[in-house]
Amino acid sequence: MPLNPLYQAGISPNKAGRDEESMSEKKKIFKPLPISGFPEWLPEVRAVELQWFDHIRRVFESYGFCNIETPSVELLDALKAKGGDGEADVDKEIYVLERYHKEESDKEARLALHFDQTVPLARYTAQHFNELTFPFKRYQMQRVWRGERPQAGRFREFYQCDIDVINVDNLPLHFDAEMPAIIWEILSSLPGMEKEKIQIRVSNRKILINALTAIGMGFNASDESCQRTFRALDKLEKIGETEVRKELIRILNISPNADTLIQLAKIKARSSKQLRKEIKNITFFQGNDVAHEFLETGIEELSFVLDQLSHLPPGSVVADLSIVRGLDYYTGTVYETVFLDDPGYGSICSGGRYDDLAGNYINKHLPGVGISIGFSRLFDRLRQQGKLPAGRLSPADIMVVMPSEERRALTMETAQKLRAQGYKVETFHNPIKLARQLAYAEKKGIPYVWFPPFEDGKDHEIKNMQTGTQAKADPDKWQKDD
Amino acid sequence: MPLNPLYQAGISPNKAGRDEESMSEKKKIFKPLPISGFPEWLPEVRAVELQWFDHIRRVFESYGFCNIETPSVELLDALKAKGGDGEADVDKEIYVLERYHKEESDKEARLALHFDQTVPLARYTAQHFNELTFPFKRYQMQRVWRGERPQAGRFREFYQCDIDVINVDNLPLHFDAEMPAIIWEILSSLPGMEKEKIQIRVSNRKILINALTAIGMGFNASDESCQRTFRALDKLEKIGETEVRKELIRILNISPNADTLIQLAKIKARSSKQLRKEIKNITFFQGNDVAHEFLETGIEELSFVLDQLSHLPPGSVVADLSIVRGLDYYTGTVYETVFLDDPGYGSICSGGRYDDLAGNYINKHLPGVGISIGFSRLFDRLRQQGKLPAGRLSPADIMVVMPSEERRALTMETAQKLRAQGYKVETFHNPIKLARQLAYAEKKGIPYVWFPPFEDGKDHEIKNMQTGTQAKADPDKWQKDD
Repeated sequence: MPLNPLYQAGISPNKAGRDEESMSEKKKIFKPLPISGFPEWLPEVRAVELQWFDHIRRVFESYGFCNIETPSVELLDALKAKGGDGEADVDKEIYVLERYHKEESDKEARLALHFDQTVPLARYTAQHFNELTFPFKRYQMQRVWRGERPQAGRFREFYQCDIDVINVDNLPLHFDAEMPAIIWEILSSLPGMEKEKIQIRVSNRKILINALTAIGMGFNASDESCQRTFRALDKLEKIGETEVRKELIRILNISPNADTLIQLAKIKARSSKQLRKEIKNITFFQGNDVAHEFLETGIEELSFVLDQLSHLPPGSVVADLSIVRGLDYYTGTVYETVFLDDPGYGSICSGGRYDDLAGNYINKHLPGVGISIGFSRLFDRLRQQGKLPAGRLSPADIMVVMPSEERRALTMETAQKLRAQGYKVETFHNPIKLARQLAYAEKKGIPYVWFPPFEDGKDHEIKNMQTGTQAKADPDKWQKDD
Repeated sequence: MPLNPLYQAGISPNKAGRDEESMSEKKKIFKPLPISGFPEWLPEVRAVELQWFDHIRRVFESYGFCNIETPSVELLDALKAKGGDGEADVDKEIYVLERYHKEESDKEARLALHFDQTVPLARYTAQHFNELTFPFKRYQMQRVWRGERPQAGRFREFYQCDIDVINVDNLPLHFDAEMPAIIWEILSSLPGMEKEKIQIRVSNRKILINALTAIGMGFNASDESCQRTFRALDKLEKIGETEVRKELIRILNISPNADTLIQLAKIKARSSKQLRKEIKNITFFQGNDVAHEFLETGIEELSFVLDQLSHLPPGSVVADLSIVRGLDYYTGTVYETVFLDDPGYGSICSGGRYDDLAGNYINKHLPGVGISIGFSRLFDRLRQQGKLPAGRLSPADIMVVMPSEERRALTMETAQKLRAQGYKVETFHNPIKLARQLAYAEKKGIPYVWFPPFEDGKDHEIKNMQTGTQAKADPDKWQKDD
């Protein structure tokens, strides 16, 4: 009987025909090991992960976004009719569900786990169109799945935290500016995150696209040379100007055009004023009002976004015209977020504006703008770097000591009184030696220990485990001393 | 090209060979419909579901339980080596994952979605044994999946909310009493729940099991007649005493024995005193100290649990000796929770004590006690009965009006000041007519509307949308009037 390679055999396997008694004595043990790509955390790490989720949710809601949750699955046909962020090869990464004991006669629609939250949002918006209030501002924090081959460092199950605003027919630019404000507020105060290392980069696709027209190239998202051009510009930070220039000349044949595009893509502007100035400085546009006019809509939109974000710390949000994302999906504003000390790690939070969310599912024009935090990837990076704050083994604020079996009821009652005031409270489970009860509180990192009276007439007392101070206290009204 | 039966074809499908222009005009639309067994809610219902989750989590943590989350999948072999609640046919309901584009050469361990949270807990505890602190008190609130055939009223994806306490070698009875206290606290104050209709029923398997020995039958969990006996007693409330008696006589042949078991199973005691009294009243045990002695351990344990819960409202927790759950799994205390006005609906929250959590995965003796809330089933029942409180379309407390494009920055700044005080705030996105801005707030059910000054020198004002009152207000410090 072959054992699964991810399991190690424990004690010797059963032999057929053994009687039940000896089977239960020497039964086979599967020693479980982690499954590659499916992370799980110890309780103290999970505690921090929960802090992160709570923080993100609080900020999303503080901007008036409602929550939705969609099933983990969609019909396979619906997933394949996808829009989505246009990431390559997503099709190949779909996990399809099969019932373990399926009968031949079962004619069921094939179900597959969703690989992002954009396709489910599109399907949801189309399906419930008449019951939603627009602009529909929703956030969604769920697991998504990618059926990749097992390999180190790639998640096959992970969380994304998305916000999107969808409207019917047209969507004010207001929301394009709201996205980075929300993301900055989240990322800059996530427990463990160093905010000075984060930068949100914004661009507007209309600028580069129309620059192609201005240099006489034209744009078609499905056109091979357009795609190669965008991909080359996207690599500017990674492979450097010289390499990008070589590649562009290979595509465009004309080196001044390559220079124009590189000069555009190199722009990193902290304000709309700076953005306009730097574009004007590009040789090609100097004195060429006709060519410059092509870029105006994109510049205006991007300037609006930058102006609305001018209250944020300098450098937290910049215009970066090299940003390229799913070409056949985004149409205006696009976002990426990088670690300034490690831009090669790639974007940890991306998105943009799309013209048509759900054209595959409904005959309505639904433009939207959205952004997605790659939660698990980000969390795991900080975890591996040892930057997460220490999590607690127990959420309890207080452990109530059990003085004696006779005082068990008093112990429980004391705990209930403290809970009624909002404290999280463990009662110790048995009246064993006090030193061992205290050792348990210490091991679990519970910051306060409460002593109900050990004898009649005595007072309740509480001990601060960090300072060691102990004082009388009233279980009906107790104030933490910090 | 056959369409999936769950989709309706929209506009006429593409014809091969059409040019791209006309394809995008007349493209195929998949009209999405719900997938049977995979519930999803509108935002206002989801808002209440989140309230439920927050409430349950708060109570779990207030008793010092830490959270864990396991992957959605386990290795198929690990799932099949399961312990678990012993529900019938779970094997058949496993969903296995298949990569959509799998190559023949890919030799990967088969992964399957978990069908409960007990098997993952066992696997987790074994895998991380050396890194956990015992007693290990954890809660877990995740989706689980059952690969049933699509049929009305059966969920294939649903949430469970579990708590368990696991210890090494032995586990104090303290925790058996803590479970119903926690569950009562949760269920009695879930938004929309009528607490007077809920009853937690507790038994101890040792009583019925040893009663079988006392009447000369013996007990073996895998024995067919034992199983039939237990199943018959379990149906007492559903099919009535007469039918159960017939069935028991069929199994046992001896009618006084059937009567003894029925008399035991009929006991519903609100206190340990009443429990002992009612058992003593059973004819078979009167003057038969030897027979009665068999039951003593079970009675003592159950009495301890009842005594610890005596502070709860009368009737909220009762001893009910008819309770039968997974026979080869639970060994002592068992719990069920029913609606008193509809006991036939079945248990909404069940569990018990088990001797050996993870014997399949580790060579350690790990007894535990746990209970699981069938969250989605319970939530959906109240939803269908119209008992859930009305949820909000937007989480926002306040909508800030936008007076004019010039005052856009002031609008945003006002919103930020209110957010800094902890309020959830939407800014209206464009300076359109005031009446239309107010109509949006009303439609989204946002309770307060804030007016930044429309002219220099004017004051900020806030309007309570329910009472209609409007007053001056300071965005740096505003107090809600309730």
